[in-house]
Amino acid sequence: MDLNLAHPGLADPEYYVPGLPADWVTERYGIPADEVAKLGSAENPFGPSPKAMDAVRDAIARMHMYAPWTAEPLREALAAKYGYQPEDFVCGSGETEVIALIIRAFAEPGGKVLMTRPCFPMYHLFAEAEDRRPVYIDTPDMTVDVDAYVDAIEPDTRIVFVTNPHSPSGTWLSEADVRRIVEAAPHALVALDEAYVHYSDTPGYIHLAREYDNLIVLRTFSKAFGLAGLRLGFGVANPDIARPLLAVKPTWNVGRLQIEAGVAALADDEHVDRTVAAILEGKAHVTKRFAELDRFRLVPGTMSNFMLIEILDPDTDSTRVFDGLLERGVIVKDGSVSFRGLEKRYLRSDINLPHRMDHLVDALADLP
Amino acid sequence: MDLNLAHPGLADPEYYVPGLPADWVTERYGIPADEVAKLGSAENPFGPSPKAMDAVRDAIARMHMYAPWTAEPLREALAAKYGYQPEDFVCGSGETEVIALIIRAFAEPGGKVLMTRPCFPMYHLFAEAEDRRPVYIDTPDMTVDVDAYVDAIEPDTRIVFVTNPHSPSGTWLSEADVRRIVEAAPHALVALDEAYVHYSDTPGYIHLAREYDNLIVLRTFSKAFGLAGLRLGFGVANPDIARPLLAVKPTWNVGRLQIEAGVAALADDEHVDRTVAAILEGKAHVTKRFAELDRFRLVPGTMSNFMLIEILDPDTDSTRVFDGLLERGVIVKDGSVSFRGLEKRYLRSDINLPHRMDHLVDALADLP
Repeated sequence: MDLNLAHPGLADPEYYVPGLPADWVTERYGIPADEVAKLGSAENPFGPSPKAMDAVRDAIARMHMYAPWTAEPLREALAAKYGYQPEDFVCGSGETEVIALIIRAFAEPGGKVLMTRPCFPMYHLFAEAEDRRPVYIDTPDMTVDVDAYVDAIEPDTRIVFVTNPHSPSGTWLSEADVRRIVEAAPHALVALDEAYVHYSDTPGYIHLAREYDNLIVLRTFSKAFGLAGLRLGFGVANPDIARPLLAVKPTWNVGRLQIEAGVAALADDEHVDRTVAAILEGKAHVTKRFAELDRFRLVPGTMSNFMLIEILDPDTDSTRVFDGLLERGVIVKDGSVSFRGLEKRYLRSDINLPHRMDHLVDALADLP
Repeated sequence: MDLNLAHPGLADPEYYVPGLPADWVTERYGIPADEVAKLGSAENPFGPSPKAMDAVRDAIARMHMYAPWTAEPLREALAAKYGYQPEDFVCGSGETEVIALIIRAFAEPGGKVLMTRPCFPMYHLFAEAEDRRPVYIDTPDMTVDVDAYVDAIEPDTRIVFVTNPHSPSGTWLSEADVRRIVEAAPHALVALDEAYVHYSDTPGYIHLAREYDNLIVLRTFSKAFGLAGLRLGFGVANPDIARPLLAVKPTWNVGRLQIEAGVAALADDEHVDRTVAAILEGKAHVTKRFAELDRFRLVPGTMSNFMLIEILDPDTDSTRVFDGLLERGVIVKDGSVSFRGLEKRYLRSDINLPHRMDHLVDALADLP
């Protein structure tokens, strides 16, 4: 093609590798979809928030009309719930869109975007797709070293991604640690990604965005609210940060069904509480059951609905384990494929209902 | 704020000005929403495609699961309908998102993006938000001069937006004219925006993307399909163009409800045909009724579901007419607010059902 591209990296771009769908396993191995342990996408085992489902049903007949381009009813509901003003929020078609907006608005081409390695791949994929420059803090022991974080912040660092609970390990940073990072980067925008915060069974640190002018806190409706397929997420920060983000989003990036479902889901504490309780139960169960395995161990300390599985057996690797689990009806993430810097020793699995955890552990034990 | 912005234009960005919602008029003037003539957003008077509504209802219970990130079932349905391959398509959360993707992937910062003035404002708003440079072809008589278009294409033009039917005038380019523009810009990506093509009562020129390597054709589900509030649109081009666009979109930019509704809407010819027939009837009706007015005239030749109203009376202007219509329960677009380069002599109104057209004409006649 003779056309100009915005930058050479777009000639052969890298795309995100999502978790496999259940029907992939059904087609390949004949295992019925409802017997597949789908543990690669961190979805909600109980499905969507029932209140959100009702709200979508009610909104269908109005979906020929444009919604407010700022998703104003959702911004108002978020403001009321979290103690902010509506203009402090920017809503996205998934938190992933908000991540992309941040990169475009707060780093110039070539600008440095700091993140751990491994991390949620969207940070470096979007940075590279937009010709910004990922800079990595290596975390070889799979936990975040806050001293290393602070040391890695440079005068020309534009954006600092902090993930809490961390991905892919699920480990947790104290509020003091998060404050240290934010205070070490007064010239940079710190994006605190709390996608999985519900599973920490704490309120998280969303209140810190009121305190720091260089902090945006990100959340998603994909996890505890059960709306991954709807696409909804948000960031909260002071309005000086939110305003440029509104300028780089497609005008109506969030539609009417998303807005109305989001408002309803925010009020559905029952669904969130039930989900979190089940994940905590699943975590206790799988932790106990992993003691039976001698070729695998869990990276300790997860506060999320996923966990890192380390392979102790030198005679296998993550791709062979991943493939062996698929044959046995279990979908996880092969660390070497899904996370830059994770190599062949790790898999990431969702934490899910106890019977799904049994399926995972039994399949691991059954591997040749 | 001391934070770095990607470029200075984000410090005080310009946002799109959408058409007002009916309840704005209700709150201000006490006119019930169903008596408001909402003629500022070019929405479908019959609501959403009924097949799309059924598809959303069916998909609600699965909205906790991520959808295929390329919207594959929709790409397959589009390929079958229009005679392409799935990989030729990129789907967006509205056609507006696809416009933004094109600007980011095919023009570097500072790169020239060619468009008419006036035009659909997203072209220059997104170009400016991303630090690309809009270059204008002025169209003072409100029709597109193809010679001027061809003359305006320079060796360093990166993207050429062509809108057919044109916006805001609704006028139509012949296939030969579109070919002339595409052939005059072999080094640039031509984006042929056919958002309103159904109302031309022709198949449009979507077949041309098979023929030209530098052409992407854009379409929306917001208009004849009646899904403006759902957010869905697409571009079709050769896969060398589609691939970089996939890299600059948020991974799951289109959700499960959007995909399933889109597939169903594509099969709903009945809804599209009914809508187009009603708009053509409304156009004939309003054209006839405008003959009664001596202070206003229609810019002739619209092939869309909107029309430009020119103010002939030198003692009023578009903002006064716009405000006077609001008081009388009619929402249109004030050209001087909604379109760069349109000044105070024009309003854009939707073409809608005959009784809404009567409301508009009667209100115009009633203005002091």
